[in-house]
Amino acid sequence: MKSPSKYLREDLSKLSPYKPAKEPCVIKLNANESPYDLPEDLKERIWERVKRESFNCYYDPSCDELRQALAGCLGIEPDKIFVGSGADEIIYDIVLAFAGPGREVIIPVPAFPSYENFSVVSGARVIKVPLLLEEYSTDRKWRLDVLKIKKYFKKGTPQVMFICYPNNPTGDYFEEEDIIELIDCFNGIVAVDEAYYEFGGRTFINRLSDYPNLVIIRTFSKIFSLAGLRVGYAVADETLIEEFYKVKPPYNVSLFSQIAASEVLKNVDWVENVRRKIINAREDLKTKLEGISGITVYPSSTNFLLCKFEISRDYVYQKLLEKGILTRKPEGEGMENTLRFSVGTPEQNEVLIRSLEEILKGS
Amino acid sequence: MKSPSKYLREDLSKLSPYKPAKEPCVIKLNANESPYDLPEDLKERIWERVKRESFNCYYDPSCDELRQALAGCLGIEPDKIFVGSGADEIIYDIVLAFAGPGREVIIPVPAFPSYENFSVVSGARVIKVPLLLEEYSTDRKWRLDVLKIKKYFKKGTPQVMFICYPNNPTGDYFEEEDIIELIDCFNGIVAVDEAYYEFGGRTFINRLSDYPNLVIIRTFSKIFSLAGLRVGYAVADETLIEEFYKVKPPYNVSLFSQIAASEVLKNVDWVENVRRKIINAREDLKTKLEGISGITVYPSSTNFLLCKFEISRDYVYQKLLEKGILTRKPEGEGMENTLRFSVGTPEQNEVLIRSLEEILKGS
Repeated sequence: MKSPSKYLREDLSKLSPYKPAKEPCVIKLNANESPYDLPEDLKERIWERVKRESFNCYYDPSCDELRQALAGCLGIEPDKIFVGSGADEIIYDIVLAFAGPGREVIIPVPAFPSYENFSVVSGARVIKVPLLLEEYSTDRKWRLDVLKIKKYFKKGTPQVMFICYPNNPTGDYFEEEDIIELIDCFNGIVAVDEAYYEFGGRTFINRLSDYPNLVIIRTFSKIFSLAGLRVGYAVADETLIEEFYKVKPPYNVSLFSQIAASEVLKNVDWVENVRRKIINAREDLKTKLEGISGITVYPSSTNFLLCKFEISRDYVYQKLLEKGILTRKPEGEGMENTLRFSVGTPEQNEVLIRSLEEILKGS
Repeated sequence: MKSPSKYLREDLSKLSPYKPAKEPCVIKLNANESPYDLPEDLKERIWERVKRESFNCYYDPSCDELRQALAGCLGIEPDKIFVGSGADEIIYDIVLAFAGPGREVIIPVPAFPSYENFSVVSGARVIKVPLLLEEYSTDRKWRLDVLKIKKYFKKGTPQVMFICYPNNPTGDYFEEEDIIELIDCFNGIVAVDEAYYEFGGRTFINRLSDYPNLVIIRTFSKIFSLAGLRVGYAVADETLIEEFYKVKPPYNVSLFSQIAASEVLKNVDWVENVRRKIINAREDLKTKLEGISGITVYPSSTNFLLCKFEISRDYVYQKLLEKGILTRKPEGEGMENTLRFSVGTPEQNEVLIRSLEEILKGS
């Protein structure tokens, strides 16, 4: 009888198995999902196409229809676009293709946890550099520690750097000039994660011709309301896109997901409407949160708000959960006593506000 | 202007980007898909459930419903089952969790190419050991080179070994006693790929309690006719399953795919009918292929047949393609002048037979 534990990778021992607690909740504000499901007629249009497809056959391994559609929207050649099973696969493909054993990944933190986890799995060394917090009387800003990050730049060791733009979980953009300064003197692949692009509008896509070492990450899980279907994409120089095709699983995106994403892209008006509703709801929620004493709200160009509490966040988190509202406790330096709230519908946000008022009054 | 080529991983330079040629064809016999699509009413039952789900929300990251259903079918606890995005993800998770930098992967070849490709990406060293071909007057058999494989077993270096059972592309089972001999003296993880299990019926699942270093790979892409939807699973000791949860992308299986697989599992009669039809068609196809002079047919416990030609396979492949039939040229030692044909419907198989007769007569 052989115990299998001795065969495990020791360098993965610190990773936690991804098995999130399934907290029962009425209002789910923990995962930055869009609060708007696809309209019924759009779902039916997707089904009209899907049901005629052969479920028994492998579907397009290079997602040609969707890449063509994206190319049209972005004004970029389809060969510079790679589609994957969610931004998660894109991030995984990046670390597998460009990081890996003997290489290093630089991550300004706090950031989206998958950058670090997937990099560790790839065998790369992870370098985390904490963000700087600049606080003014009425404003506060998370900045990249450019000087410190640059100290980790090496000529001899191949490196990858992740920049989440706008950043999750802090919520806002880093200074563009800081990023440009970093890219200018970095010898490696820079992955700019624009998962929340549509809620703020700034992008590095138009810098691709200046910087062929850039990879832009985008997703259908946020504004396009397809989190359940796993579609994301990368935009980059063809040389880099070719590497994605080396490390990807052969048939990475299911037929339903490819067709659903292609159909959603045709509904620009609906998407634009969702965008406006979420941005309006965010600004309204921000104003109301700022009106509650004991909460500091950070600026946001995303569909979530990071808040710092004067009292224990565990207490607030638990009390909200008792009221049926699931939120997120961001991890990492500077995140002490913070909670992250996805922007819900105006009605959901009202319930959140009323609940927080009660909880903080009673504390 | 920085050229991105210098940032690429040199150890991936030999991998080919996975961009299969999209050959137009009428009969697709190159990918061992089931020739039977789901019946319309089953598709509609899937849709009735899917359309009520929130596309905008991440779906179950641990595929609980499907794992429960599989546990019932297999008579195995759900905690010993892991569901992934096709057997491809399962294979990737195995090499990421148990191979990786500084480790070795032993692959008897020819085999399913992803074992090697994904292992290389993980940073592991790949050891390929050619199969032995035993030829008798009326029979022939691909065997594991047990002696040679055992020479590569090491105590100091963690290892993974893949056994495809029955083997793709050769088509039949290896001797069970050979595999047991290998497992008995191997210090590492043994992945037994049973993608084609249902076409032959032999399995190592009932050996899991004796060998906790075993991982069984299964798929919904063959008998269950869901290749387009990407669902596969692993069965293993809980200690190993936990490692899958460390390396998997957080939301690896889409909501449509989870529900579709769960619904197909409820239709055992339909699946059993498909199984019987394919096995009958395989035996019929085999007899007829053996009746054509110039073709050697290897035994098969799968839904495909490996054939060796006396004339150039490139000629036969091209002539079949001109007649609208897409087949596969297997790679690797011993595969010279072989073609692999998926078992199609009886009608498709008839066309294949007639075409081969014409081609070989004319040669």
